[in-house]
Amino acid sequence: MDALSSIAFIGLGAMGRRMAARLVRAGFDVIGYDVSPEARDVVTAFGATVALSAAGAARGADIVILMVVNAAQAEAVLFSGGVVEALGEGRPILLMSTCPAWLVSDIAERVMAQGRQFIDAPVSGGTAGAEAGTLTIMAAAPQAVLDPVRPVFEALGAKLVHVGDRPGQAATLKTVNQLLCGIHIAAAAEAFSLATKCELDPHLVLDVLGSSAASSWMMKDRGPRMLESEPAVSSAVDIFVKDLGLVLDTARNAKAAVPLAAIAHQLFVATSGRGLGSADDSQVLRSYAALNGT
Amino acid sequence: MDALSSIAFIGLGAMGRRMAARLVRAGFDVIGYDVSPEARDVVTAFGATVALSAAGAARGADIVILMVVNAAQAEAVLFSGGVVEALGEGRPILLMSTCPAWLVSDIAERVMAQGRQFIDAPVSGGTAGAEAGTLTIMAAAPQAVLDPVRPVFEALGAKLVHVGDRPGQAATLKTVNQLLCGIHIAAAAEAFSLATKCELDPHLVLDVLGSSAASSWMMKDRGPRMLESEPAVSSAVDIFVKDLGLVLDTARNAKAAVPLAAIAHQLFVATSGRGLGSADDSQVLRSYAALNGT
Repeated sequence: MDALSSIAFIGLGAMGRRMAARLVRAGFDVIGYDVSPEARDVVTAFGATVALSAAGAARGADIVILMVVNAAQAEAVLFSGGVVEALGEGRPILLMSTCPAWLVSDIAERVMAQGRQFIDAPVSGGTAGAEAGTLTIMAAAPQAVLDPVRPVFEALGAKLVHVGDRPGQAATLKTVNQLLCGIHIAAAAEAFSLATKCELDPHLVLDVLGSSAASSWMMKDRGPRMLESEPAVSSAVDIFVKDLGLVLDTARNAKAAVPLAAIAHQLFVATSGRGLGSADDSQVLRSYAALNGT
Repeated sequence: MDALSSIAFIGLGAMGRRMAARLVRAGFDVIGYDVSPEARDVVTAFGATVALSAAGAARGADIVILMVVNAAQAEAVLFSGGVVEALGEGRPILLMSTCPAWLVSDIAERVMAQGRQFIDAPVSGGTAGAEAGTLTIMAAAPQAVLDPVRPVFEALGAKLVHVGDRPGQAATLKTVNQLLCGIHIAAAAEAFSLATKCELDPHLVLDVLGSSAASSWMMKDRGPRMLESEPAVSSAVDIFVKDLGLVLDTARNAKAAVPLAAIAHQLFVATSGRGLGSADDSQVLRSYAALNGT
């Protein structure tokens, strides 16, 4: 494969637009596409070109990056949307969205059957990591497929983990990552709710437990936002409704019990069900507040 | 109160003997007592005196420290065991064991009704923190009661948190601490079990997720021991059977739902029930192994 210079970037939401901006700054020629005209305007502002269809973005590109919402969107864009056909033969498609591993495997097989390469490459680090180019990228594909794409990974992330050769393996690792993240956010909320019910000052709880053996990355990151009444939205409740749902689907598919993830999911689902799906995910605390009257 | 020089230290188990050793090294005159003769021999070896009864240790001491197993032992030693009576009037009793907050309040009232002072002072940091003198000490008592005891806290811990004036408040904070610690250990085990079931290398999972947004203090500390077949015992499964039990009792007492803690407790209980109560608490992983065949 020739050196990469032109990148079709499909999916310009909170993550995608920040990642596309980093690629522009790193000197790549980025052609963006999103179903939302507002998202397309955003990327024009920082110097990306926009296409009027996903296939239009892919035509003539050296590589396609997908940062769409889920596997169904990825599938629609790639196949009925004509992206695979529009991309040159032998060129790689990077799926960076969080998707179920078995759907990633299926999509990968179909893409490769059409003579294009496929890299399963979900990320962790959130919008802050996307903005700063410090994402952790988990990649599954043969080494020879990954190597030419390294400059793209370097523009987006601080750490590249080669999980394995088979697409789907990185999606599984991301799923396990989300299991822990989701449980840890809910656990922090449970701790604050119990503390409040027992008349302890939650700021003291955060101060002491955020730096003890009880701490987690999520406790330190979401904890302060749990103590605000209307925190800014860093990542929405509905992301964990989806991602812990994906954890449960993955576990059911593998026939594995994940009881803590199941309970954590219930708490995010109930939070969304009370109309808070777009609130910051720290607000899962409000399900505890509703339950415990805190 | 005069300066403290002589300390009665009651309860010389894995934590207590290490804490007593630090006090000896800090220049205090330590008179130890434990129901087990073996524990008494250990403290003699590093320069503490031993008494043949708890009351004998307390007689003439400037302060009594209790690091017994639970509130029932504390109560037995203090009242039927005659420790309160043996200690001089106005002298302080420090209860450093992890106990239910309402029992701590009760014990404190009875102690103070007999004209002695009481400090609710549980710790976090485990045997490693006890050994190194780097415990976090959570203390609840009026400031005027805490101040003269400061040299003792400084010999034992790296951080003293004044939780409030009322004994029981520090026990509550410790309980919330244990809620998070217990859930985080079980969550790490759940993550490894799902990963293994999905054929991911658990060492890779630990490497990547131990330093991502999915990480917790417990994941980093217990995770490596989850990947050993017979890890050294740093803290036993039965400690979390007790401590998460205490979380559930506290929450029930306050009428608060703590669903994640309840599930985590079940996993520790089942691990103990299969004969692994004395194994390292990382081995809660084996309940997942039993459930999921991993």
